[in-house]
Amino acid sequence: MAWISATYLLTSRSEEVQKRAAALALEQSVEMPFEAVRDEKIRESIVARVTAIEPLDPQRHRVTLQLATATTGEDVTQLTNMLFGNCSLQDDVYLEDVAFPPELLQRFGGPRHGIAGLRALTHAPQRPLTCTALKPQGSSCETLAELCETFGCAGIDVIKDDHGIADQTYAPFALRVRACQAAAERAASVTGKPVIYAPSLVGSPRRIFEQAELARECGVRAVLLAPMLIGLGTFAEFAAAFPELVILAHPAFGGASRISPVWLFGKFFRLLGADATIYPNYGGRFAYTQDVCRALAHAARAPWGSIRPAMPVPAGGMPVERVSEMIAFYGKDVMLLIGGSLLLAGERLPERSRTFVEAVVQEV
Amino acid sequence: MAWISATYLLTSRSEEVQKRAAALALEQSVEMPFEAVRDEKIRESIVARVTAIEPLDPQRHRVTLQLATATTGEDVTQLTNMLFGNCSLQDDVYLEDVAFPPELLQRFGGPRHGIAGLRALTHAPQRPLTCTALKPQGSSCETLAELCETFGCAGIDVIKDDHGIADQTYAPFALRVRACQAAAERAASVTGKPVIYAPSLVGSPRRIFEQAELARECGVRAVLLAPMLIGLGTFAEFAAAFPELVILAHPAFGGASRISPVWLFGKFFRLLGADATIYPNYGGRFAYTQDVCRALAHAARAPWGSIRPAMPVPAGGMPVERVSEMIAFYGKDVMLLIGGSLLLAGERLPERSRTFVEAVVQEV
Repeated sequence: MAWISATYLLTSRSEEVQKRAAALALEQSVEMPFEAVRDEKIRESIVARVTAIEPLDPQRHRVTLQLATATTGEDVTQLTNMLFGNCSLQDDVYLEDVAFPPELLQRFGGPRHGIAGLRALTHAPQRPLTCTALKPQGSSCETLAELCETFGCAGIDVIKDDHGIADQTYAPFALRVRACQAAAERAASVTGKPVIYAPSLVGSPRRIFEQAELARECGVRAVLLAPMLIGLGTFAEFAAAFPELVILAHPAFGGASRISPVWLFGKFFRLLGADATIYPNYGGRFAYTQDVCRALAHAARAPWGSIRPAMPVPAGGMPVERVSEMIAFYGKDVMLLIGGSLLLAGERLPERSRTFVEAVVQEV
Repeated sequence: MAWISATYLLTSRSEEVQKRAAALALEQSVEMPFEAVRDEKIRESIVARVTAIEPLDPQRHRVTLQLATATTGEDVTQLTNMLFGNCSLQDDVYLEDVAFPPELLQRFGGPRHGIAGLRALTHAPQRPLTCTALKPQGSSCETLAELCETFGCAGIDVIKDDHGIADQTYAPFALRVRACQAAAERAASVTGKPVIYAPSLVGSPRRIFEQAELARECGVRAVLLAPMLIGLGTFAEFAAAFPELVILAHPAFGGASRISPVWLFGKFFRLLGADATIYPNYGGRFAYTQDVCRALAHAARAPWGSIRPAMPVPAGGMPVERVSEMIAFYGKDVMLLIGGSLLLAGERLPERSRTFVEAVVQEV
């Protein structure tokens, strides 16, 4: 019998925490009073168990539950349900971390490409990678393609759609992707190095799968997906269906105030197949701390059984001036994503983009 | 040009709120500095606008944004992205409510059956409906089917799988659904009234669609889905693909601490096709207040353009003793869901289930 070990932070006082932890264990397994579970086998092998309670302060405890692997039905969505389904509705519960038994880990693919695959694709075996975003939405296909070519000619490795770019009338998916991919290829022929265009796939499962087929036909090698928006199960199914595509995961709708972003974006997205994981860097438009960012990057890159490392991609209002500091902080296995800060340059966009690329190269 | 009106609560002081609201408008549309948006048309028709700022207290403001309908690409996932994609990562933002322009409202189906359809299906034109759950997971198909028959013979209208029941080895989906549907039909032939069995569909999109096909072949008329777990786009796609199935929405993974549960479970699930919406009732295992529950039920049932009303289903640790109070609180257009409290009766389960059914009938 295999068990998943899930760690939660509970806002609960010392005198109540044992009872609260036991209630959480029931909530996340049989969802009924223990007395009403009459089958001895279910009591032993299905009901979740409290295995540790560690006081953090008088109001907060770290509680570890063992959840029966059998309850997940070897399905990502159901796994998520068992980890944080009902208790997501109880605001004294925070999901901190999860340890999976080896056999469950092997059921998930993890990154198909990961850091090594991204480096091979971009012909950059050592240095930090560079990434930017095509924006704003509302722009025509021609404008976005032109922007893509400018960025590519400046030597930026990965050019992704802004995550707000979908299949909108002002730049329909099929036309946009064809135009931007062609622009990336033109840029590559100028610079002599690969330029990877990663379109954003957004929509219902049917729509995303159709978009991926279409992108693949255009020669696209990488895509942007937001796992929490499209559903974690859809994300995992996508990764399995398109193993040749490099997947950049976007944190949108991650609303991680009650799930640890370290676990969600660093580990869980990686486990489900993200080759690179984008997240808000410290000191930007979002309130993540240095500690969270360090831990998140570590979670994405650290050895983890047979699961390949995923590339951390700090982002969210980063200026070119911070390149040096970010590389000092993250090391070389990182992809720096700078978007709006480049576009602020207006007419001087090509120079500004090259400055970004050169700043990264100089650091190595 | 049509606009969606979204209301957020911002934790922000009076002297900062204008700047903060403007930043939110950029985050949820073009995701770049306004100065860097050089196209006048995009500034006018794509960049979100702050239309109202209302102080609630010195630390909190209600901010209304207009988001361009064009940015949603008429897609549920992208709509969600525009409403709460990036700002879900900023913990000073709470999504309170959304008003859609009529043309967008018509793009969504809303409930295919709704309250009227549920009443027709259960032959209960007036009174509150009764609902219970098959549990615990870990039980065999035979045990669950037996339970289903007992509940059905007691006269309970809708018998759903516990939301933790998926496609697990101890009760594989295909066998379980066949057995439980047959049990419901046997019970119906005894009582002479319909007994609706609603299996839980959990998994990646492919799996859910396969499960629905299979359930439909067995004669199943209603299903349980958790929109936040499977993805809101998957949920909407499902509702469109299986218009003959009555859909009960489950709040699992709704983690609604930063999205109003009134809006999410009451309005948005309804808009996307939930015929009934399950939510934690006040005074149970979850911390929802009476005010939240009243507003949620109202949101599910209130007139809303062409969108049919959805049935509110308060749940979460409700005992039979509260039937009278709950009907007084919610009125007749409600489905009462009582699970664990029935199962606590052990050997006296049939009597306890009948007590539940009779308690509801007596109130009318």
